[in-house]
Amino acid sequence: MSKVIKAGIVGYGNLGKGVEKAIAQNPDIELVAIFTRREPGQMTAHAAGVKFEHISAAEQYKGVIDVMILCGGSATDLPEQTPVIAKMFNTVDSFDTHAKIPEFYETVNAAAKQGGTVSVISTGWDPGLFSLNRLLAEAILPEGTDYTFWGKGVSQGHSDAIRRVPGVKAGVQYTVPVQSVIDRIRAGETPELSTREKHLRECYVVAEDGANEEQIRETIVSMPNYFADYDTTVTFITEEELAANHKGMPHGGFVIRSGITGEGTKQIVEFGLKLESNPEFTASVLVAYARAAYKLSAEGVTGAKTVFDIPLGYLSPKSPEELRKELL
Amino acid sequence: MSKVIKAGIVGYGNLGKGVEKAIAQNPDIELVAIFTRREPGQMTAHAAGVKFEHISAAEQYKGVIDVMILCGGSATDLPEQTPVIAKMFNTVDSFDTHAKIPEFYETVNAAAKQGGTVSVISTGWDPGLFSLNRLLAEAILPEGTDYTFWGKGVSQGHSDAIRRVPGVKAGVQYTVPVQSVIDRIRAGETPELSTREKHLRECYVVAEDGANEEQIRETIVSMPNYFADYDTTVTFITEEELAANHKGMPHGGFVIRSGITGEGTKQIVEFGLKLESNPEFTASVLVAYARAAYKLSAEGVTGAKTVFDIPLGYLSPKSPEELRKELL
Repeated sequence: MSKVIKAGIVGYGNLGKGVEKAIAQNPDIELVAIFTRREPGQMTAHAAGVKFEHISAAEQYKGVIDVMILCGGSATDLPEQTPVIAKMFNTVDSFDTHAKIPEFYETVNAAAKQGGTVSVISTGWDPGLFSLNRLLAEAILPEGTDYTFWGKGVSQGHSDAIRRVPGVKAGVQYTVPVQSVIDRIRAGETPELSTREKHLRECYVVAEDGANEEQIRETIVSMPNYFADYDTTVTFITEEELAANHKGMPHGGFVIRSGITGEGTKQIVEFGLKLESNPEFTASVLVAYARAAYKLSAEGVTGAKTVFDIPLGYLSPKSPEELRKELL
Repeated sequence: MSKVIKAGIVGYGNLGKGVEKAIAQNPDIELVAIFTRREPGQMTAHAAGVKFEHISAAEQYKGVIDVMILCGGSATDLPEQTPVIAKMFNTVDSFDTHAKIPEFYETVNAAAKQGGTVSVISTGWDPGLFSLNRLLAEAILPEGTDYTFWGKGVSQGHSDAIRRVPGVKAGVQYTVPVQSVIDRIRAGETPELSTREKHLRECYVVAEDGANEEQIRETIVSMPNYFADYDTTVTFITEEELAANHKGMPHGGFVIRSGITGEGTKQIVEFGLKLESNPEFTASVLVAYARAAYKLSAEGVTGAKTVFDIPLGYLSPKSPEELRKELL
């Protein structure tokens, strides 16, 4: 397969590095350049022919790069970058501040319409694949109850909160779905549950020498907003254990809809992810949607799109004929 | 919500009856008429205002019915009916003879193009939702292995085979996925497996009075193609037990992709269904895709479409704005 799609990466943190690896797994996509806000001369590209550029040089790639994969954060990077870059390039991003998606969509849509480009916003797995499955199950089973579970996975915000506790040298927090609750739902029950009833919080903490472990534990489990309302466990470990067992970025979760058809017939639809690396998986979703952005743009489509607007066939390098023959 | 979409049902077996019930759960869809090959005067409609008509009267509903939901079988009904009806109406069907889908697509596409209609073919859950998930997971994780498991569910063909065994009065066969194999895959193994290694066959048999049960068991478990290559269990039950415990039509299954990103990072994507009624669930999928056919047709689209060609947003009665706000 010839490398027909020329891609660029904007932002070279965990997600951008994941996109670089994901592109290498896709025979129809070629990575042309990586754009950063750092001094690009200090960076080394992994693949031959890939350039590192300062983000200010992006404009010079107009007409060369087909789609820019935006790997910045949702708090400050994407609200600023997506509208600017969408005026010049097709884009895909993983904007995940749920409450601000409608506003973000409007801003990006205006920019992409102006630029004559396609911008696929808020991809990844939640928002993204989980959203697709919420929609699909709700459309098929209009009478039903929906559950989203996250984990087992690292929560960055909660890990940061642990590390701010006096006496804590290092630590990590996992959000863990409650297995007994999942089992009840899979068995057909439809309990009303808050997020806290569906999840536990597991903390692994390295204490400073001489610190009072009982006091650290108490401070963590009683921390309002973060831990006080949850079943929280605190396990003290050594720095070596932290390095050996807790450096990965696993995540995942489940979207389950328990619905009723006919006269009380139970029907359960479930989608689940078990990910050893959250950023590498999110990156893989971004790359598949970059392909879709390219195809849509080639058909003359413009504007902002979400996962709800894009036929899944556009994610695949295969032709519609191949898909019907091999995967239907 | 006003009933904007006028629907018809063609074929009134288990699936057609399921569609009738599913339409009643969808506030934007109105059932106008049910078409059968039987004498329609003998039929009684459940909902007020729904007419029973002979299938030959379908043409009279041109311009009245927006979308015909075709509920016939794949062996003989749909190959004949879909192309004829697609010349007059938007349609949706559950054609599921995998090997013949490419040919069926071409025939229906020509008819729908001629009629200026949209025909969504091969919906349901396999083909249908399982196909969507195979495509999605393969596009995101190009390096990986794909597993489809069916069951626990009734296999009509295998149940018929049991009932042909001398001395058998009645019986039912369940296809059951092998839990230990699923567990291995969920744990990250990627074994090479044939269909028979992934599934067990459970038979529940009512023997004629005085029949030799050991001989019946032996005939079943050694039956070529159907049972000989599988782990097959035969349990003898009474007619009362059969009626009490085995009259449902449960089914379901799993699509699991175990993939690799980066340097050997394991990522697992799984979609599963647990259905108390296979026909009612398939019917619910058909109704959601009937809505999509209506929307596509209203936009001027024509021709045959599969689940791969249709944005999932088209399945929902909600507007794109509502979907972005509530489900993304």
